[in-house]
Amino acid sequence: MLKTTLAPKSIAFIGASSTPGKLGFDILSNIKHLGYKGKIYPVNPKGQPILGLKTYTSIRNLPEIPDLVLVAIPASTVNKTIQECGKHGIKNITIISAGFKEVGGEGVQREKDLQNIIQKYGICLIGPNCLGIINTDIDMNASFAEGMPNKGNVSLISQSGAMAVAIIDWAYESGVGFSKIISMGNKAGVTENDLLEYLGNDSKTKVILMYLESIADGKNFMKIARKVSLKKPIIIVKSGTSEAGTKAISSHTGSLAGSDIAVSTAFEQTGIIRAESTQELFDFAKAFSAQQPPKGKRVGIITNAGGPGIMATDALSTTTLKLADISKQTQEKLSKGLPQTASLHNPVDVIGDAPAKRYQHAAQTLLESNEIDSLLVVLTPQIMTEVKKVAEITTSLAHQYPEQTVMSVFMGGESVRRGYTVFRRNHFPNFVFPSRAILALDHMYQYAEWKKHEKNRLRKKEVQKKVLGRKKLDAIFASKKSGERFSPHEIETLMNAYGIKCPKMQLAKTEKEGCQFAKKIGYPVVMKIASPEIYHKTDAGGIRIDIENEKELKSAWQEILDNVKTYNPKAKIEGITIEPMVPIGKEVIIGAKKDPQFGHMLMFGLGGIYVEILKDVTFRIAPITKNEAMHMVEEIKTIELLKGARGEKPVDIKNIAEVIERVGQIMMDYPQIQEFEINPLIVCPRRGTFAVDVNCIV
Amino acid sequence: MLKTTLAPKSIAFIGASSTPGKLGFDILSNIKHLGYKGKIYPVNPKGQPILGLKTYTSIRNLPEIPDLVLVAIPASTVNKTIQECGKHGIKNITIISAGFKEVGGEGVQREKDLQNIIQKYGICLIGPNCLGIINTDIDMNASFAEGMPNKGNVSLISQSGAMAVAIIDWAYESGVGFSKIISMGNKAGVTENDLLEYLGNDSKTKVILMYLESIADGKNFMKIARKVSLKKPIIIVKSGTSEAGTKAISSHTGSLAGSDIAVSTAFEQTGIIRAESTQELFDFAKAFSAQQPPKGKRVGIITNAGGPGIMATDALSTTTLKLADISKQTQEKLSKGLPQTASLHNPVDVIGDAPAKRYQHAAQTLLESNEIDSLLVVLTPQIMTEVKKVAEITTSLAHQYPEQTVMSVFMGGESVRRGYTVFRRNHFPNFVFPSRAILALDHMYQYAEWKKHEKNRLRKKEVQKKVLGRKKLDAIFASKKSGERFSPHEIETLMNAYGIKCPKMQLAKTEKEGCQFAKKIGYPVVMKIASPEIYHKTDAGGIRIDIENEKELKSAWQEILDNVKTYNPKAKIEGITIEPMVPIGKEVIIGAKKDPQFGHMLMFGLGGIYVEILKDVTFRIAPITKNEAMHMVEEIKTIELLKGARGEKPVDIKNIAEVIERVGQIMMDYPQIQEFEINPLIVCPRRGTFAVDVNCIV
Repeated sequence: MLKTTLAPKSIAFIGASSTPGKLGFDILSNIKHLGYKGKIYPVNPKGQPILGLKTYTSIRNLPEIPDLVLVAIPASTVNKTIQECGKHGIKNITIISAGFKEVGGEGVQREKDLQNIIQKYGICLIGPNCLGIINTDIDMNASFAEGMPNKGNVSLISQSGAMAVAIIDWAYESGVGFSKIISMGNKAGVTENDLLEYLGNDSKTKVILMYLESIADGKNFMKIARKVSLKKPIIIVKSGTSEAGTKAISSHTGSLAGSDIAVSTAFEQTGIIRAESTQELFDFAKAFSAQQPPKGKRVGIITNAGGPGIMATDALSTTTLKLADISKQTQEKLSKGLPQTASLHNPVDVIGDAPAKRYQHAAQTLLESNEIDSLLVVLTPQIMTEVKKVAEITTSLAHQYPEQTVMSVFMGGESVRRGYTVFRRNHFPNFVFPSRAILALDHMYQYAEWKKHEKNRLRKKEVQKKVLGRKKLDAIFASKKSGERFSPHEIETLMNAYGIKCPKMQLAKTEKEGCQFAKKIGYPVVMKIASPEIYHKTDAGGIRIDIENEKELKSAWQEILDNVKTYNPKAKIEGITIEPMVPIGKEVIIGAKKDPQFGHMLMFGLGGIYVEILKDVTFRIAPITKNEAMHMVEEIKTIELLKGARGEKPVDIKNIAEVIERVGQIMMDYPQIQEFEINPLIVCPRRGTFAVDVNCIV
Repeated sequence: MLKTTLAPKSIAFIGASSTPGKLGFDILSNIKHLGYKGKIYPVNPKGQPILGLKTYTSIRNLPEIPDLVLVAIPASTVNKTIQECGKHGIKNITIISAGFKEVGGEGVQREKDLQNIIQKYGICLIGPNCLGIINTDIDMNASFAEGMPNKGNVSLISQSGAMAVAIIDWAYESGVGFSKIISMGNKAGVTENDLLEYLGNDSKTKVILMYLESIADGKNFMKIARKVSLKKPIIIVKSGTSEAGTKAISSHTGSLAGSDIAVSTAFEQTGIIRAESTQELFDFAKAFSAQQPPKGKRVGIITNAGGPGIMATDALSTTTLKLADISKQTQEKLSKGLPQTASLHNPVDVIGDAPAKRYQHAAQTLLESNEIDSLLVVLTPQIMTEVKKVAEITTSLAHQYPEQTVMSVFMGGESVRRGYTVFRRNHFPNFVFPSRAILALDHMYQYAEWKKHEKNRLRKKEVQKKVLGRKKLDAIFASKKSGERFSPHEIETLMNAYGIKCPKMQLAKTEKEGCQFAKKIGYPVVMKIASPEIYHKTDAGGIRIDIENEKELKSAWQEILDNVKTYNPKAKIEGITIEPMVPIGKEVIIGAKKDPQFGHMLMFGLGGIYVEILKDVTFRIAPITKNEAMHMVEEIKTIELLKGARGEKPVDIKNIAEVIERVGQIMMDYPQIQEFEINPLIVCPRRGTFAVDVNCIV
C-alpha cells in the first residue's frame, strides 16, 4: 500500500483552499503546477472550483475511490474525517495537520484515537504533523515544500518536516538529486521501518537518507537495515545524541530517544553510515550516489599546489585509508608529461601553472597503474588553470575507469564555479575542502568492508551451543519477580547450563558451615558476602581471598560481617559464600543491559579502573557470532594488555569471545533479563576463563 | 619597514609585460586598475609604455627611490637584480618569481645567495615564490590574485599562494572582509614572526588568520603570539599534521615541519585558535571578526523547528558551553508573546508558523533576562517564515545587546538567501549548520578564558626556586659529550640542586661493595643495574626490590647480572646501584624532550601501561608556572587515580606540579638537555614525591 501512497494515480485533498498563502492553497498548487499527471480532487465544504479544478464538498461525492487522500484541516476535525474515509473504503492517507501527540495533553489522546481508526479500517497512514510526500519519478509534490527537487537516485525519509524543507532547499545547490522524499511526522501509522523496507526494494532509489529523532522498533529496524544495507547504503543523521538533546526531543515531538551508544552500536552492526551533521549527510549522499566505493585503501592525489596536497594527506591520516605508494616505473611514466619541478610522489604535484593536459596525463597514468583504488583530483584556481577543462577531463576519466573511485576538490569560490557546472551536469562528486572528500571516501570504503564481513557472516552459520538443564532454568526464571537478583546457586545453574566455567561456590549461613564447606572444597578459599543489597562487595569490605586454613576463615568471617555492617547497617545478610581460589590471570568484565529500543547490549572491557575510569569498553547488540565477539574483544584500546604487553604471556582471547557469545545467547533465551554482568571473568594464559562473580537481574 | 612594504607610496614592478595573460601583465593590471593611488613604475628592458604607464628600462632610471619593488622575472636573473636594487638604496622588495629553495638543487643555493644579498643591504624581503601582497586599506592588490577582496578587519598571512587565492575566492561568498593579505612564499626574509608582530600592532586588523606549513623560529613565535593573543585572536590552519603529511611538505616546499603535538601545545599555551580545516578558518574568522566572545557558558537557543534545536543541543554537549537554564519568571514573560504549543524551555521553540514578531519577542526576552551569555537564532524556511525580517531583527538586537554574543543559523539554500544579504551588509555571523555556529562560539569562549588565565599568569610572577651548587652542575654539563647519559651520581647532584627528592643511591661495583652500601643505607633496599646501554631496566630483569638482607642481596646480585647478560650480551656493566626502598605510592612519569621548533616539551602521565599503552599524557612547553603544572596534572584522563579512586587516599598533586615546574626550570637552565625523564616518580598520600629512576641525556 506504500507503493500506492507514494505513486498514486489519483489524489483527493481534504482542506483545499482558494486563498493564496494558506496551506490548503499552497499544497494544491504544488500538486497541480509541478507536473503531477494523475487525477486531482480538491475537497472543500464550499465546493467552489479552485485553481480551475472541480472541487467536491465531501469525499463521498468523488467519482472514484482515490488512491491517496491528503488531509490538511484543523486537528479537532481530523479524526472524524478519517473515520469517514475509512468507511468509504479509502486505504491511503497522509495527514499534514498538526495538533496531535507533539502538543501533549488532548493531542496525545487524539493520536491514540486516530491509531484505532486506521487500524480498524486497515489504512496506510503517513503523519500526522508532517510536510507531505514528494516523488520526482511521477513529478508529484504533495507537500508544502516549495518547488520540485532535481531528479536523482537519492531518497529521503525525515522525521522533521523543517529538516526536510532545509534539505530540499540545499539540494538545489549541492547537486544531489532526489527520487522520493517522505516526511514521517508523528509516525502514527507508517514508521521508518516500513519506509526503509520499501525503499530498500525501490529500483529508483540507490541511496537512502534519513533524518531520525527516535527509532520506534529497534529490533525490527536492525533486521531490516541489515538486509537493505547489503543492497544499498543507508545514511542517517540521528539527532538527540546528548542528554540535554534527549530532553529537547521529549518536549518537542513527544517521542522517546534511546541511549546514543545503543544507536551507534546498532548502526555499525547493520552497516548504516552515520552522518554527524546535515553537512555530512549531503557529502556522503553526493559521494555514494555518484560513485562506487573504493575496492581498497590506496588513495592517489593529484594537485596543482602543495598546501592542499598536504591538507588532503593530513585528512587521510585520520581515516582507515592510506596514501598509495607510487612505483618507480609509474613515476617514470608520470615524469614524461610533467615538468622537472613536479613532485612524482603521492600527492603528485603538477605545479601551479598546470594546464588541463598535465592533469590528464597524471590522472590517466595513475588510473592505469593498478597502484591506486581511488583518485582525488585537487585544483586551486591559479593564473593558467583551465578550470572547466580539468573538470571535464576528471568526469570523463571517472567514467572511463569505473574500477576506481574518482572524486575532486576544486577549492575556491567564483573562480572554480565553471567547474561546478560540469560536475553537476555529469553527476560527479566534487567537494570544496579536501578533508570532506576524504571523509566521504573513507565512509564508502568502510561500507564496502562491512558488506564483505556481512556476507561472510551470513555464509558461516554458527551452531549454537546446546543448553543443559533448560527446564530447571525456565523454572528459576519463572519464579523471579521483576527487579529480583539471582542467588549464588541460581547463578551456578545458569552458568553450568551455558558452559561458562565458574568456581563451585557454597553459601554458608554460619561460620561452622563455612568451615565445613571450605574443608570440602579444599583450602585456599575465597569468602564473599552474600547480600542482595550489596553489589560492590570489594568496596564494602565484603571479600577476603587466599584464606589458607580454618583459623584464618574464622577471623575473616567476623571481619567481613563487621565491615559490611559499617558499610550498610541495613543490608540483609544471607551468609558468606565459600569458593575455591581461581588461578591468577587478567580480570575482564562481560556485561549485558537491556536497551528499550534495540534489545540487549553486550559490553566487554578490562576490569577495575579500565572500565570505571577509562571507560575502555566495546558494545554489540545481541545476538552475536563468535567472530563478532572476537572483533569486540580486539577493539578495546587496552587489548595489548591481553595480548601480552611487557613480556607477559598472552591470555586466551578466543575463550573470552566464546563467553561473550554465550552471554548473548542467554539474553536471547531469557529476554526478561534486565542486567547481567560477569565481573570479573578471570582469564588465564592457559587454563581458560573463570566467571568469578556474576550478577543477574530480571 | 614592513609598514612601508604593506603601504607603499610608490611601487616599481620589475618584470612588467605588455602581453595580457602573462604574470607581468596581470600583476601590473591589478595594481593599476583596482584603485591603488600611489605612483607606479613598470620596469622592462624594452621600455615601451604598458597600460598607459611610462615604463623604465632599469630601476636606476626611476625618478625616485620607490617604497616597494615587486619582482616577477625568471629565477636565474633575480639575484643580480636584487643586488642592483640594494646598491641603488631600495629597502623593500617582494619577489613573486619561483625557482628557489622549493625546487631543490641549485634553487637551494640561489636562495642562500639571495639571503646574503638582502642581509648585506638591509632589505625587507617578502618571498620569493609568493603570490604578492594585498592591502585593501589603500586599495592595493600587488599580487596575481584576481580582483579586490571585500574590505574588512581580518588579515591573512599564508605560506601557500594557492591557499591564499582559494581563501580570497571564498571570502567573497562567506562575507568575511579583509584588511591585509600577505603571501610569504619561501620566507627567505620576512617570516610569520615579523608579520604576526606587525599585524598585532596594526589598528586596522582585528583578527589574524594564518595558513602555515612550518614555523621557522618556534620560541620567538610563542613569545610574539602570547603578546598578540592578548590583543586580538590569532586563528591558524597548520597543515602537515600527519607523518605522511610531513613528508609531503619536505618534498614540496623544502621546509621542515615539526612534531604536531608540539604545535598544538604551543598554540594552546599562547592562546592561538587552531582551525582543523580551511572551513573552520572561515567559520572562526566570521565569528571573531563580528562579535565579542561570550562572557560565560550559558547559551540560549531560539528555533522555529524541533529538529535543528535538537541538533544545536547535541552540538553543545561536545563543547565547554552549556544550554542556559531559563527561569520560571522568564518563561512566563516568553509565554506572553508565544502560542500555547511553543516550548518555553531552552531551546525555545517558537513553532513553524512563527512570524518575525514572535522571534523578536523571544530573542528580546532572553537577551534581557540575564540568564544567557550568548544567543543562537535558528531558522528553517517554512511557509510563513519572514526570512528577511527575522534577519533584520537578529542583527539589530545583536547591536542593541553588545554584552551578549549573538549568532544565527538560517538553514537552507535559495529560500533563506534573502537573509544572507542582510547578514553580509550588517557584518553579522550567520551559519548554515548549528554545529558549525556552536563550534565557533565555543572557540570564542575558550579564547576569552585563555585571556583571563594569561592575565592572571602575568600578574602572579612566581619566584623561581633557588638552585644549589650551580657551579658543580655547570662543570658536569660542560664535561658531557652530545648524546651522553648522566651517571647515577650526577643525577643525584642534579636532583639535589633543584630540590627534587630522590632516594640516596650508591653505585656498587662489586657484590662486596653492594653489601657494605646496603648496610649503611639500611635494609630493605632496591638493586638496579647500572649500564649506559640498558634503559628499560625492568624489561632487562635489571631491577630487584625489597631486598631484606645480605643473603638476598648476594643471590639477587648474580641474578641481575645473568638477566642482563641474556638481555643484551654486549651491554657495558658499570655495577649495580643500591638504594633504600621508597614508600608505596602511585607511579607517575615526568619527562622532557627538546623539540627542534619550540624548545623543551614537558610531559606528564601515570607510569606503566598508562603511558605505554593508553598514551594518557599531557604536554606543555617549558618554562611553566606551578599553576600551569597543576592544570597539566589535572588534564590527564586518569586523574581520578591520583585523586583517590575506589576508596584510596588522594596523593599530593601539588607536589607533582612542583616537580614538573622544576624540571621545566632545569630545561631552561641547561637547554643542551635532549631528553630527560623521571620514571617513576613515586607519589605518596602524605610523604611527598620520590624520583626513583631518572634519565638525562645531553
